[in-house]
Amino acid sequence: MSLSKNDPIGIFDSGVGGLTVASEVMKRLPGEDIIYFGDTGRYPYGSRSPEIVRKFALQNVGFLSRLGVKSIVVACNTASSVALDVLREKFPLPIMGVVEPGARAAVEATKNGILGVVGTRATIKSGSYNQAIKRLDPKLRVIAKPCPLFVALAEEGWTKGEVAKLIAQEYLHSLKQEGVDTLVLGCTHYPLLRAVIGEVMGRGVGLIDSAEETSKELKELLKKENLLNPRKEGGEYRFLVTDNPEAFLRVGRGFLKGKITKVELVEIERLKGEG
Amino acid sequence: MSLSKNDPIGIFDSGVGGLTVASEVMKRLPGEDIIYFGDTGRYPYGSRSPEIVRKFALQNVGFLSRLGVKSIVVACNTASSVALDVLREKFPLPIMGVVEPGARAAVEATKNGILGVVGTRATIKSGSYNQAIKRLDPKLRVIAKPCPLFVALAEEGWTKGEVAKLIAQEYLHSLKQEGVDTLVLGCTHYPLLRAVIGEVMGRGVGLIDSAEETSKELKELLKKENLLNPRKEGGEYRFLVTDNPEAFLRVGRGFLKGKITKVELVEIERLKGEG
Repeated sequence: MSLSKNDPIGIFDSGVGGLTVASEVMKRLPGEDIIYFGDTGRYPYGSRSPEIVRKFALQNVGFLSRLGVKSIVVACNTASSVALDVLREKFPLPIMGVVEPGARAAVEATKNGILGVVGTRATIKSGSYNQAIKRLDPKLRVIAKPCPLFVALAEEGWTKGEVAKLIAQEYLHSLKQEGVDTLVLGCTHYPLLRAVIGEVMGRGVGLIDSAEETSKELKELLKKENLLNPRKEGGEYRFLVTDNPEAFLRVGRGFLKGKITKVELVEIERLKGEG
Repeated sequence: MSLSKNDPIGIFDSGVGGLTVASEVMKRLPGEDIIYFGDTGRYPYGSRSPEIVRKFALQNVGFLSRLGVKSIVVACNTASSVALDVLREKFPLPIMGVVEPGARAAVEATKNGILGVVGTRATIKSGSYNQAIKRLDPKLRVIAKPCPLFVALAEEGWTKGEVAKLIAQEYLHSLKQEGVDTLVLGCTHYPLLRAVIGEVMGRGVGLIDSAEETSKELKELLKKENLLNPRKEGGEYRFLVTDNPEAFLRVGRGFLKGKITKVELVEIERLKGEG
């Protein structure tokens, strides 16, 4: 396999949430072509076993790789947490996740050294944020909390109001008690609940969303690998999903405005052969 | 394909919820062998498109059929709602769902003729309960309401307390206002929230869970097809899932007590070849 500067970047997520990452990549690297793959037919990953998330991730990257991408962004916290190692082992192209960039941003932001992380059950159980933060600074304290209902809330569109607030209070009160001054939103859905999470945590607490940081590190990675597209604008985008392209387009428009006009359906069977 | 009285019954659901149906079948038909298949690797079905639920259902029934079952119970409201027709078209064995038994029980229970149905987005959108009820009695009024957060609540174990109550009030107040006297719990997860749903709806409203009714109708169906196992006890049970057998066993014990001791993992790849 030979990688070229003109090849597209592959970004995958279990669904629509990774578009927050795609959007930042489009802003920072407007000359790059992007193939976004959302595995909506097997979404969500956050409640699944590490074994099957690894298998799905291997299939997704295998599929993107056959489409000729030059690098991969795993824009899903769960897959980044449990599958990054096996992906890097198996595929000879630069692969990055969202956990390390998020961890780095959090480490830079904290003043009192007490960090909180919220995410899916699989992400929190993996301890990936904890490890990434401790690798950067072993003296920091990390308090992690799975918040499975946040995804359901965001999907239902109940991002404000009493139900959202009550659920946020229930999940976050222990983090507040511990005095965290920085909270990593370790799931791509959670930024949709940013307002209510911010309200419950209080003004003194900074909220970290990995998307922006990930786009910065992607640029560095491509530069280092000599794979940055010399073009300064005119990147083209493809969007592929395994179920419900109409729903993806509807929600995706909210994330990407005019940058998404068509969504293609991929049969899950086409993912097989890898993993 | 020749079906025999001694063959097992196949029951499938997207996950663990269909065990409520399996449990009733075990009670009513203690001589029958059962193969229960939970598609936990692609769970949940309730938010997916009808097309992909049909495809998954065809694969699941194809798989059970290759294991030699004599009949199929689709113990998932979503799959019963959108896939029963294509399943019956494709497979030459008796297949039943949970919607018609639930509808029948509700029609028998109502006194004022105003019925409520709650379920996943896919089940409610399909209009399956509405049609099944109207087929039995066109004069009845049916008010249907999707309650997607109920599944997340049940999985989180928040089946009591203020959050559950607030969400139930939010979803159910329109049904209360319309004066329903009977409410179909049209999703296998919802019986776990029976207490809070009952509290919000009030004592005058009867709650219908399809599981018992389904087991009655299954017995009738097997009798009619001359497929009832002559054995009166000693049925043997197998449990197969596509992800996380440990979690399934843990939750399944709550449903089935000593009747579940082992759960086997099936690779999703083995389902292909059908659908």
